[in-house]
Amino acid sequence: MSQMRKDIFTNRWVIVEETNTVQPSDFTFTRFVRNTTFCPFCETHEATTPGEVFAIRKPGSPANAPGWSVRVVPNASPRLRIEGDLGRRAEGIHDLMNGVGAHEIVVETPAHDLSLHQLGIEGICGVLKAYKARILDLEGDHRMRYVLVFKNHGEAAGAHTVSHSISQLMALAVTPQAIKSKLVTCQDYFRLKERCIYCDVLQQELKGKRLVWENPHFAAFAPFASRFPFEVAIFPKSHNSAFSRISPEQVSALAETLRMVLQKLERALGGAPYNLSLQDRPFLNPRAGYWKTIEDDFHWHIEILPQVFRITGFEWASGFFYNPVPPEVAARCLSL
Amino acid sequence: MSQMRKDIFTNRWVIVEETNTVQPSDFTFTRFVRNTTFCPFCETHEATTPGEVFAIRKPGSPANAPGWSVRVVPNASPRLRIEGDLGRRAEGIHDLMNGVGAHEIVVETPAHDLSLHQLGIEGICGVLKAYKARILDLEGDHRMRYVLVFKNHGEAAGAHTVSHSISQLMALAVTPQAIKSKLVTCQDYFRLKERCIYCDVLQQELKGKRLVWENPHFAAFAPFASRFPFEVAIFPKSHNSAFSRISPEQVSALAETLRMVLQKLERALGGAPYNLSLQDRPFLNPRAGYWKTIEDDFHWHIEILPQVFRITGFEWASGFFYNPVPPEVAARCLSL
Repeated sequence: MSQMRKDIFTNRWVIVEETNTVQPSDFTFTRFVRNTTFCPFCETHEATTPGEVFAIRKPGSPANAPGWSVRVVPNASPRLRIEGDLGRRAEGIHDLMNGVGAHEIVVETPAHDLSLHQLGIEGICGVLKAYKARILDLEGDHRMRYVLVFKNHGEAAGAHTVSHSISQLMALAVTPQAIKSKLVTCQDYFRLKERCIYCDVLQQELKGKRLVWENPHFAAFAPFASRFPFEVAIFPKSHNSAFSRISPEQVSALAETLRMVLQKLERALGGAPYNLSLQDRPFLNPRAGYWKTIEDDFHWHIEILPQVFRITGFEWASGFFYNPVPPEVAARCLSL
Repeated sequence: MSQMRKDIFTNRWVIVEETNTVQPSDFTFTRFVRNTTFCPFCETHEATTPGEVFAIRKPGSPANAPGWSVRVVPNASPRLRIEGDLGRRAEGIHDLMNGVGAHEIVVETPAHDLSLHQLGIEGICGVLKAYKARILDLEGDHRMRYVLVFKNHGEAAGAHTVSHSISQLMALAVTPQAIKSKLVTCQDYFRLKERCIYCDVLQQELKGKRLVWENPHFAAFAPFASRFPFEVAIFPKSHNSAFSRISPEQVSALAETLRMVLQKLERALGGAPYNLSLQDRPFLNPRAGYWKTIEDDFHWHIEILPQVFRITGFEWASGFFYNPVPPEVAARCLSL
């Protein structure tokens, strides 16, 4: 039998198989392979990328030279460009605008042979500090409304040419639809309860059988209506709408949480491709007055989506998902 | 450079590359391969499937025996089951219900070695008649609200074990989110214009450079904000909210359109995996009074999504899409 579970944040239904016996080894997928062709992101290859916009470096080392631990550079083949105005306009009945925005690469380590889960706490802290610094900087661009931070690990997750450990960061002139739908739910829930829906869900998950890991600042769990087998969400325990307000102590705690969760996924699903994203609030733009309770009702979080099971026409046609692994079983597998 | 284009039906933004030179041969993808292991859907193997619920057969041939051209059987490993009640309930803050519904297989041809685009007009008419008959039958089940019809062609589109040409049909107790979001837009537009938004878009596309094919009853075009390279939509030219009201003359015209479009895709992108779905209105359930103008404002259609380019963390994180092929270029490639 199966259950239909509703994701409380997006109202998306997921068909979840009811089984206690499914295991990570039941899935076949293309494992992560590190390529060895010339890599522009390796230390000493700094001159092959556009000039860095942020780096954590040894004191005194010059920009765009060795000596860094994390380095952010504009994407050499950007999907959006920083120059120009938005040019919002119509084509008959349709709407369009120029592809204006930022598209940057966060090089997570100078070493070609390390994945994010293999970096030490300090290395992961550096990556998180880079996200924070770039978000705060891009927030100053009044054409932009949102910074999307995401990561593709492995070819099946979309990293088909790059195997150096990187994240991507895009500043967008519109708030992503995935975030907007969460904001609507947050606002509706807050109107009803005068509480943050993420805080309420967290309180339940901390006591339940979907918890994967926790420390004093963060909790990781398999979401009740996980779209993907072995999906994990990471929530900060104290309410906050904006990732960029993270404290140094929270950065360390998040680095520990990310490292633990990614290592658990690696142990359970060796070499599994995954997508990771930061689900942050949009900029507090005075034009976006619609989200006036956002500081109280939205709660930033991280989504980790292992890609071990194929999306089909069912998902594209419906917006629903089918997940053969109950989140309770996923949490049990990951807790081992 | 790129453009950001807004899909008028879903408010989803798509980053579309601005290029005139991209070609089908720029894409590498896993081509459709027909497997030759034992196939339960072949003629003379009727006893290996659950008993048929619909078939188009030679007069006098008995059920579950050879002599059919199209055959609909319950899925032997269904994701939803027909028995039982919905049992809508809470788990703390979360919502769930039993996985109740129908999950059927439309076997499109008795021959193992033919794909949908290789069937004659009469063969495709049979498939469409099967969809219609099953929708009308399932509409009588008062627990159900929607019948989702979709097709996975090729392993990368989700058909990883079955290479016989089939479609799938699922009766659902809830209206899919992808349809709901279109219904909301249709209703808003109708309130403003007192016209169907699909009719208005169609009028523009018929005159434009994204048109792929038309006959007196149907038009196929590359949608303005296509999510996928070489995506095609098929709209009936005369307004109608429900596929099940299709006339025999329209069935023939749709079969011709589907055949032409799939053959064009095959010619441009030999062996490309694709997903196809029918985007129909939900059942006119008295409980669903919210959609009271649905007959006037919604317009059924078909989506064909070639899977030649990988989804990444960007799409999962944002709900937006990146499409390296401008729909105008896609239409030009498909018109050749």
